[in-house]
Amino acid sequence: MRLTRYFLPTLKETPTEAQIVSHRLMLRAGMIRQSSAGIYSWLPLGFNVLKKIEAIVREEQNAAGAQEMLMPTIQPADLWRESGRYDDYGKEMLRITDRHERDMLYGPTNEEQITEIFRAHVRSYKDLPKLLYHIQWKFRDEVRPRFGVMRGREFLMKDAYSFDLDYEGAKRSYNRMFVSYLRTYARMGLRAIPMAAETGPIGGDLSHEFIILAETGESQVYCHKSYLDYDALAEEIDYEGDLQPIVDHWTAQYAAADEKHDPANCPVAKDDLVEARGIEVGHIFYFGDKYSKPMGAEVTTADDTAVPFEMGSYGIGVSRLVGAIIEASHDDDGIIWPDAVAPFTVGLLNLRVSDDACTAACDDLYDKLRAAGVDVLYDDRDEGAGAKFADMDLIGLPWQLVVGPRGVKAGTVELKRRASGEREELSAEAALAQVIG
Amino acid sequence: MRLTRYFLPTLKETPTEAQIVSHRLMLRAGMIRQSSAGIYSWLPLGFNVLKKIEAIVREEQNAAGAQEMLMPTIQPADLWRESGRYDDYGKEMLRITDRHERDMLYGPTNEEQITEIFRAHVRSYKDLPKLLYHIQWKFRDEVRPRFGVMRGREFLMKDAYSFDLDYEGAKRSYNRMFVSYLRTYARMGLRAIPMAAETGPIGGDLSHEFIILAETGESQVYCHKSYLDYDALAEEIDYEGDLQPIVDHWTAQYAAADEKHDPANCPVAKDDLVEARGIEVGHIFYFGDKYSKPMGAEVTTADDTAVPFEMGSYGIGVSRLVGAIIEASHDDDGIIWPDAVAPFTVGLLNLRVSDDACTAACDDLYDKLRAAGVDVLYDDRDEGAGAKFADMDLIGLPWQLVVGPRGVKAGTVELKRRASGEREELSAEAALAQVIG
Repeated sequence: MRLTRYFLPTLKETPTEAQIVSHRLMLRAGMIRQSSAGIYSWLPLGFNVLKKIEAIVREEQNAAGAQEMLMPTIQPADLWRESGRYDDYGKEMLRITDRHERDMLYGPTNEEQITEIFRAHVRSYKDLPKLLYHIQWKFRDEVRPRFGVMRGREFLMKDAYSFDLDYEGAKRSYNRMFVSYLRTYARMGLRAIPMAAETGPIGGDLSHEFIILAETGESQVYCHKSYLDYDALAEEIDYEGDLQPIVDHWTAQYAAADEKHDPANCPVAKDDLVEARGIEVGHIFYFGDKYSKPMGAEVTTADDTAVPFEMGSYGIGVSRLVGAIIEASHDDDGIIWPDAVAPFTVGLLNLRVSDDACTAACDDLYDKLRAAGVDVLYDDRDEGAGAKFADMDLIGLPWQLVVGPRGVKAGTVELKRRASGEREELSAEAALAQVIG
Repeated sequence: MRLTRYFLPTLKETPTEAQIVSHRLMLRAGMIRQSSAGIYSWLPLGFNVLKKIEAIVREEQNAAGAQEMLMPTIQPADLWRESGRYDDYGKEMLRITDRHERDMLYGPTNEEQITEIFRAHVRSYKDLPKLLYHIQWKFRDEVRPRFGVMRGREFLMKDAYSFDLDYEGAKRSYNRMFVSYLRTYARMGLRAIPMAAETGPIGGDLSHEFIILAETGESQVYCHKSYLDYDALAEEIDYEGDLQPIVDHWTAQYAAADEKHDPANCPVAKDDLVEARGIEVGHIFYFGDKYSKPMGAEVTTADDTAVPFEMGSYGIGVSRLVGAIIEASHDDDGIIWPDAVAPFTVGLLNLRVSDDACTAACDDLYDKLRAAGVDVLYDDRDEGAGAKFADMDLIGLPWQLVVGPRGVKAGTVELKRRASGEREELSAEAALAQVIG
């Protein structure tokens, strides 16, 4: 993509309304624009990152055996009256009356909706287990929305739902999601720690939050220091096999979110306990028949008795992850995207567009990178070198390929790795080889 | 995907509430489930088709030089007060009051929102032209929602917006979208005719609807009979070149939607005029400064004067297309998916799962198809052949690969093409070669 054509409205000033670094950087990098409090438009650069994160989430859900579907944003209130949550949910639920005066709502989550679908369509234990998910916008009418996309009102979430015949089956489904979450975050370059958590308005009695540590984290978390040395779960998983050993490994030591932590009964010695700020990037729940029972969603067992479905739900905050990754990966100059979620892999900087040889060399590199299938953002603007360096550091692409008139004469370009700041003078061919890999 | 694992709740009975064939078939084929009037959940099979259509729309938008972004579903009412449409829009707009008593709405379209973004970020003629699009859920609170996803309340739409300095630029952007729409529908196996149209609540003075002819079409349309012989636009397009000749070719003869057609002034002789029922699958508008002027969205020209943006908007009904394709392509037994949008390419039918040789042959074909990257739905259920044939015809995959115990003994399988009904007995290898292509 040529920057002269791309819609990338970067800002020179730091927006004063933004309290945390990811919010500031997303506004400055032209990734988002606020529409109203806690509601954002995703401009092309931000949208690009959102889609990369979504794609990783989708691939890992599919790998774990979950099937994608899509439930609507607007739900009938009657569904939530069946579960008893319509009155419980309070003012965070965006309530809507349609033209026929029917009570509707903008879904903050979808347990009722998916339970209704299973109640209507699934009759026999032979149809279980089932694990379904969707990636859909949700709404939570926060009193004081803030922190940009980290705590917005309209937000994109992946939520999966498991249906099993009994507790053992439900635990296997829970383990599938537990393990797939570790894989998902690892692929994004994040170290996420599963922590015992309260179940809150979802309910149930087994729950983990997946937390990444960051100074700017929204909540206090507590974990055994050994988690700081855990290797990310990078290996391929056989989801048909026994996942309990992996879950056991990751839950062997104490780790708890604030609400769950009880200093008086903490089993970890003070010296071994890490107290830190954390950002929640996922939350999984086992809640048995909490919804299936009141809603009468039953399945027939092998000996022909009807029992309510055993269920769990599993959420990943897709739009929040964009902010969370920035909180975990930035410096004073801007964002540092992990390769897997970078909006482009390479930024190509033409330091003097008025110089024909320099521009010809850039055009050639641009064509070769694109031919090799590399996502490249080509800064072909008629701007000074300083502005180009600053913008490129701000938007944080993993590689910068810097081409100036002097280098072109000498047959060299400069290749910079954004994360380390390392720079290297080398031939165009050698630079291409390194970036294309 | 093995059918024993897939969530595919097909129905034996025809749902009585569905008035048109696409709605009936989508319910029977387990593609959707109604959540409330005019609002649907997309079950895995339906979701799969929706994603294939969305992918084609996205590829053709990108090819035409449009950049993807994403605007939120919930918009502030104040934006619509600026354009004057808040009061005009009537009861079809879903109006919402948030917890702070602010007036919001669920966007039926996004002209105001994108104009606000350009007003804030784009200052100079040098930043033009720009063409941006998003694929987002919209809401239109229909009095009597019906016809399934063809006229739902919550629906998925691709809407693009063009920003230019002057009329000539705007016309070029209009032509880009005009031509890319013809390509988009052709790729889905649809013959769409561009027809002169009224601009309705979007406004403006140049507009075309893209209409596919179908007996069950919602509106009356009129066109010169020559359009019935036009070849679909299948060739690669150079979007940087002059597109006017293509637009001229496709608008050379008379074609008009009902509201635009005036029998008294129709230039076509009666014998040459086709009167038919049509389904609208796209609508494009040029409307100049209708939004930019009242909203004060201006750009500076080369001679340093400020002028309002020249704009157009361009919609494709993504969720509606799922129904429209079925209306155009089905028979008494079920859906007939065009290859490009089929949820799976092949249905593999194991006619006797209790027969080890038969099941081994099927498993082998299943592995080979997947290894070749072919999307295959494997009916490995313990059901009779009749039920399997009926379900496979109903869901309409392009190819059926039928494996029975007698054939396996003789070294043959049956390959059926859903569209033509043609069947062929051949070796497993020959069948694979034909399907993999």
